[in-house]
Formats: sequence, structure tokens, C-alpha cells
Amino acid sequence: MADVLKGNIVANKIKEQIKKDIQNLKQFNKIPRLAIVRLGYNPGDISYEKSIIKNCDNVGIESKVYEIDENIKTEELVELIEKLNKDNEISGILVFRPLPKHIDEDVIRNVISPKKDVDCMHPLNLENIFEGKIDGFAPCTPKAAMEILNYYSIPLEGKNVVIVNRSMVVGKPLAMMLLEENATVTICHSRTKNLSEFTKNADIVVVALGNAKFFDESYFTEKSIVIDIGVSLDENGKLSGDVNYDRVLSLVDKITPVPGGVGSVTTSVLLRQVVLACKNM
Amino acid sequence: MADVLKGNIVANKIKEQIKKDIQNLKQFNKIPRLAIVRLGYNPGDISYEKSIIKNCDNVGIESKVYEIDENIKTEELVELIEKLNKDNEISGILVFRPLPKHIDEDVIRNVISPKKDVDCMHPLNLENIFEGKIDGFAPCTPKAAMEILNYYSIPLEGKNVVIVNRSMVVGKPLAMMLLEENATVTICHSRTKNLSEFTKNADIVVVALGNAKFFDESYFTEKSIVIDIGVSLDENGKLSGDVNYDRVLSLVDKITPVPGGVGSVTTSVLLRQVVLACKNM
Repeated sequence: MADVLKGNIVANKIKEQIKKDIQNLKQFNKIPRLAIVRLGYNPGDISYEKSIIKNCDNVGIESKVYEIDENIKTEELVELIEKLNKDNEISGILVFRPLPKHIDEDVIRNVISPKKDVDCMHPLNLENIFEGKIDGFAPCTPKAAMEILNYYSIPLEGKNVVIVNRSMVVGKPLAMMLLEENATVTICHSRTKNLSEFTKNADIVVVALGNAKFFDESYFTEKSIVIDIGVSLDENGKLSGDVNYDRVLSLVDKITPVPGGVGSVTTSVLLRQVVLACKNM
Repeated sequence: MADVLKGNIVANKIKEQIKKDIQNLKQFNKIPRLAIVRLGYNPGDISYEKSIIKNCDNVGIESKVYEIDENIKTEELVELIEKLNKDNEISGILVFRPLPKHIDEDVIRNVISPKKDVDCMHPLNLENIFEGKIDGFAPCTPKAAMEILNYYSIPLEGKNVVIVNRSMVVGKPLAMMLLEENATVTICHSRTKNLSEFTKNADIVVVALGNAKFFDESYFTEKSIVIDIGVSLDENGKLSGDVNYDRVLSLVDKITPVPGGVGSVTTSVLLRQVVLACKNM
């Protein structure tokens, strides 16, 4: 039976450190404050927002939601973000994405101050990740995966890590983070041939397809360490990872559950970045 | 016997296109001009400079060398680059690297105008590469490798490509370029274990260690396509690639020679980027 790499214990450790950091900041009259910019009423956004606000309250970060008409023009959204950039009461800015199609996301991500960019959307922050400077603002999901690997003392140096995702929010930044830890990194995707040969030969497999239960036991061995970032609904409308968890659990060495794995660490990583932004103000 | 993937024929094709583009630009009274900024008298820099000037003359690009005392202060170099940024007669700026240790390279690469940054040192241009936007300014060496693969019609979609290099000037940007072509990409490096297993399983192997003749026949198979970016001196002081060419030539499917391979395409890629900068002015 595989070791289950639960996320909540990792998240709790991060949150304990955040609370200490916030106590220290109080001595300098600094309070971390997060501005959440949400356009419209996407249920996914609202659910994520609730979780962020609850976690903010829990650790002592103040949060303020800017609920915006989804028909706002790009220039008006730019104005709001510029106002938040200048506002000394705001440490970090989170803009929910994807933005509505009529908004030029490239304009928005260039406008946000790199110093308040806690979700790592600004090109200058992303370029730091490309260079392997991963201690500043980083995309939260791959950083959460790294936190889990680190918490459970999973060695990375010289290990063969296969990532099934090549996006700018997961696969590419994660590859850069793993290279910094001296892992050998393979980036697979929808056009990869013989995917199971790559995953079976890997020491660690990170999957993020958003395709419920896609990866069954034919993709793994008894040595596999599996990090499941995918989140989607299965045939019964139940939240599921990319891995067919029930069938794989008895085979592999270690595995993150969904829910309760990487996703439960993501918000803590975001909050830590709000505190970092506050420290640097 | 392997097919030898010669670079000069690829470079010539690029140069022919450059000449046509320059003819077109003349109609708009535009002449591409390259500013070369060299600090001190590093023999490697001077040799590369000579080759660039010769090639510029050959295609119709004007070049101007700024020969600078290597003891210049960072602020003074910043002043020069800011002057070149504003100079409407200058299309592109090339600063030879590595810079002397007392110069803050990070300051310099942030100062150069992204629109004149023909060597792709500015973070915003590098971030474009990270995102897979590879048609603007790109690091010249990995782009030259891509030109060779493209010229010889080597399929990349779904192919297993192994890169032995993780630097910002070769391995990482090359990985992003290959992902855009839907290759499956593995990044190996000095800490990779069982390197030959990775290279033997690959369809295409790109090596850039700078370790003369390191890769012998034990790293390849009869199906291997080998792109050799390494350049160093062998035990007899002769220019050599990373591959033990004489021993590997009879085994593999295709291979680039050194000299005469990727290196002979690099300058043409640079010149094309000067023309691109001129077009966009």
C-alpha cells in the first residue's frame, strides 16, 4: 500500500510559519493585506475566493475583494490595478484568471506591480522562475508540489522526474524548480508518444491533465512516487485527480490524494507570498 | 555512415533571405545597423567580432564596434547603452558576455532596450521564450540548432529529444523551442544519473557540455540524430565538439560536425535579428 502524501499537514506547517512572520511584521506596524480582483461570478472563482478569505482570516492576513462587472474594459481594469499598485495599504494583488475574452490579459499582467504580484503573472517574475530564481513570487501550484516533495523528504538530486503538463502555470515553472534541485526533468504533453514508457521509467511522476482517472496502473511501477495535480469531475460528478487512485494506491510507493493533496497546499503558498510582499514593502 | 548535417548551407539560406529583406527595407530608407559593445580584448570576443563584421558586410548590415576600457564602471556602461537605445541610427545592440566581474550584468541586461536586444539578454525577451513565443529575439545558439533541424526536415512532433545542458543560453531556451514543435523534451545535466540511458533512448540528442569528445559510441544508437553544440579544444589543441566525432560517425543516423555545424549558423541568426530590429523600428 502506498504512502499517502497528504497536503493538509504541509499546509499547516506553512501556515504556522506565516503566523510567526505576521507577528514579527506587527513590530514594524506592517499588516499583510491581499486585494482579490474578481470579474463576474464564476463559481470556481467564488469557491477559491471563499477558501482564500477563510485562510487569510485564520493566519491574520487582511483581505479585500474587488468584485468587478465582467464587462469592464481593459483600460478600466488597468486603472484599478494601477490604483492598487500605489495603495500603501495593499501588499499583494491577486487577479482571478482566466479573464473574460475581451480583456487583454497581456496588458493586465504587465501592469501589475512585480512587487505585489503574489500570483506570479508579471513577465519579470516569470522570467525569474525561468532562470531558477524560485524564492520570490512563484506560480502557486507547482510551488505547492515542491513543498510536498520537500516536506516528505523525497530526494530530487539526480532523480528522473517526468511532468505531464507544459503550461506556464504548472509544467514549465515546475520543470525549472526541479532543475534547481538537480533533478533530470522530462516534459511530456498531449503529443508525447508512448507516455507510459516515460512515466514507468521515472522515479517521480507529476501529472496535471485535468482528465479524471486517466492514469491507471499501466503507467506506474512499485517504485513510482506520484504527484497528482489534476482536478476534474469523474463520471459520477465527484472531484477526482488525473490518477485512478483506487487502482493505483496498492501498486505505487507514494501518492498524493485528490482532494487533499497539492490543491490543499496552494492557498498556503499564496498567503506566504502575500507576507513576502508585505515584508518587502 | 551518418548523414553530416552541415551548417554553412543553412547559414547561406538564412543570409540570402536577409539580403532580400535588406533590399525591401531600402525602399523605406531603412538600413540595419548593429552596435557591438566589447569590453577589453578577450581573444574569443575579438574573433567572434571579426566574424560578425565580415558577415554584416557580406549581407549589407552596417556595424560599429564600441571598444570600451574593461575597467569601465557599471554606471558608465549603462550610460553608453542608454545612448545607443535612443540612437535612431542603431537597430540592434550586442554586448559581449561574460562581462568583467565588477560589472553588474543584471543591471546591464535590464537597461538594454528590449526592441534592440538582438542577443536576447533582456528578461522580457527571455520570458517570451519561456512562454514559447520564439519568433522575436531568441538566444542565437539554440535558435541555430532549431534552424538546422528545420532545414534538414527532421521531424520533431512527438519525438523524444534529450538536451544535455540546462543553461539560460542553450538548454532552457532550446527546451522551450522544442516544446513549441511538440517534441517531448528531457533536460539532463552534470547531476543526471545514467546519462547514456537517456541519450540512447532519445530520437534526437543535443549536447552542449564544452567537454571535448566526451560522448563516445556508448551514448548513441544507429537511430540517433546528434546535434553537437559543444566547442572546446581537444588534447591536441584542436577545435572539437562534445562528441567523439570520428568514433560516432559510423554509428549514428545524422550528426552535426564541429566546426561547421551549429556554430556556423549562429551568426546568421544574430544578423537576422538585427534585420528584425530594423523592421520594427
